[in-house]
Amino acid sequence: MEFYFLGTGAGMPSKQRNVSSIALLHPKMTWLFDCGEATQHQMLHSPIKPRKVSTIFITHLHGDHIFGLPGFISTRAALEGTTLLTIYGPKGLKEWLDATLRVTGTYLRYPLDIIEVEASRTYEHEGFRITVEELEHRFPAFGYRIEGEEEKGALLVEELKRLDIPSGPLYRQIKQEPTFVFEGTEYQSADFLGAPKPGVKIAVLGDTVPCDNSIRLADQVDLLIHEATFADSEQDHAGRFGHSTARQAAEIAVQAQAKKLLLTHISARYVDQEQRLETEAREVFPESYLMMDHQSVVMKG
Amino acid sequence: MEFYFLGTGAGMPSKQRNVSSIALLHPKMTWLFDCGEATQHQMLHSPIKPRKVSTIFITHLHGDHIFGLPGFISTRAALEGTTLLTIYGPKGLKEWLDATLRVTGTYLRYPLDIIEVEASRTYEHEGFRITVEELEHRFPAFGYRIEGEEEKGALLVEELKRLDIPSGPLYRQIKQEPTFVFEGTEYQSADFLGAPKPGVKIAVLGDTVPCDNSIRLADQVDLLIHEATFADSEQDHAGRFGHSTARQAAEIAVQAQAKKLLLTHISARYVDQEQRLETEAREVFPESYLMMDHQSVVMKG
Repeated sequence: MEFYFLGTGAGMPSKQRNVSSIALLHPKMTWLFDCGEATQHQMLHSPIKPRKVSTIFITHLHGDHIFGLPGFISTRAALEGTTLLTIYGPKGLKEWLDATLRVTGTYLRYPLDIIEVEASRTYEHEGFRITVEELEHRFPAFGYRIEGEEEKGALLVEELKRLDIPSGPLYRQIKQEPTFVFEGTEYQSADFLGAPKPGVKIAVLGDTVPCDNSIRLADQVDLLIHEATFADSEQDHAGRFGHSTARQAAEIAVQAQAKKLLLTHISARYVDQEQRLETEAREVFPESYLMMDHQSVVMKG
Repeated sequence: MEFYFLGTGAGMPSKQRNVSSIALLHPKMTWLFDCGEATQHQMLHSPIKPRKVSTIFITHLHGDHIFGLPGFISTRAALEGTTLLTIYGPKGLKEWLDATLRVTGTYLRYPLDIIEVEASRTYEHEGFRITVEELEHRFPAFGYRIEGEEEKGALLVEELKRLDIPSGPLYRQIKQEPTFVFEGTEYQSADFLGAPKPGVKIAVLGDTVPCDNSIRLADQVDLLIHEATFADSEQDHAGRFGHSTARQAAEIAVQAQAKKLLLTHISARYVDQEQRLETEAREVFPESYLMMDHQSVVMKG
């Protein structure tokens, strides 16, 4: 799978960074996290097709995270999108989108399912388990933990060969069914499979100061995507406005024992000196990477 | 004054054209006509400053004409906009903007006055007379006629010299007051002024098929801005979707005796063959110009 950063700026667009949106490209589906204004414009210069997006997760209802939704939703219909679009987001999202579609006379040719999330809830969605927790911002804001299904272990071929069990349909059955029968004897499939492979674990957090729920959502994740609006020198300012510094994001990654940290939601004030934020984060957590618009990160899962 | 085209595309953004927005730059004020998504992004590459925009005229509530409003309004506040912003537009605009600001917790540090327009009404605004008429689209859509105040004629200096009236404060009084007194005699100021200069006349129309109200609004204007979504070959299609061809826009200009026609709201299907639309318009009305994003047209007034 691949995370493609469509917008990595904070608050308002600049020439260097658009407001928030991240795409998750997976062989089975494309998801978005947040949809700031001009996300559809950014897509024009990316491999992402609006009609392929099946799900959008909104972290909070501040304008720089949602003002691209109405345009995206409309364009998805105009560009032959006919399949279900699901949007997860905070309470208020449905009222706003319903009003927007009604006032503008927008008719979507696909079903739109808006799910207003609740803290500490888990949703099963498109083969993934999504856990939602509230973060600490000046406004209700949420983080999402995404867990892939555990995959069954590999076939223990040597063991199968020892019993002269032939490859073919039976091997497939062993991977799919709890038991199988060979020459009149029933076997437990688990005895012929290696250790199961854990599913991918990812956390995508909205705007927040450092908080316990961030650590909880990011617990041992393969990848944590965290805001880093400010540098060390603005730590007090960050706190007052409900944001984190790059170093604070790195501290969350350490406490959660995350494997990798991607930093986004960068204030426009750091143009030409953004390396500073990455350096400050790496002093705490070496696997920290500051993202740019149109940068992508590939990972297994 | 100058018309600066921020977005000249139809329906949805393309790499070449953003959705609708036109700025009117005047020494006394900056106005916008429509505010499609990413209008604030286009401004980053233009001379237009959000805080300088005093008034926005919305032609209709289709998304490609208004989805940039919430972001523009928010950014105007963030970029030190503290003065009144007035928005004229169709009924429904206030409900939508109020819901948007409420749901997103957006606090503006300036007063926002939303005026829902009615057909056949005239508004006096910032020294101009604005006349609104409904057009013929698939959705309530309006056109705006803007008339500058008539300017008093030039002083008839030879006449004044003949009476030995000295230049200075008295000349200023003649330009400003209906009468003046010189050496005990009262004179009519009008007797010492040339013919008054007519104010500038402009029409900016929203999406529409050719209609009588377009001709009425554009009557003898110095400048008509008209949509030209399609080419001749798509005239039937244009009509079905409530739009005009470039040639039809030119026919309106002829019938209204407009001096100049600017064509905008161009379908993305004509990329690389847009000259066709301008050519078709010019066959009917030679003073037709097809606009591109970031192109501007300067005029007196």
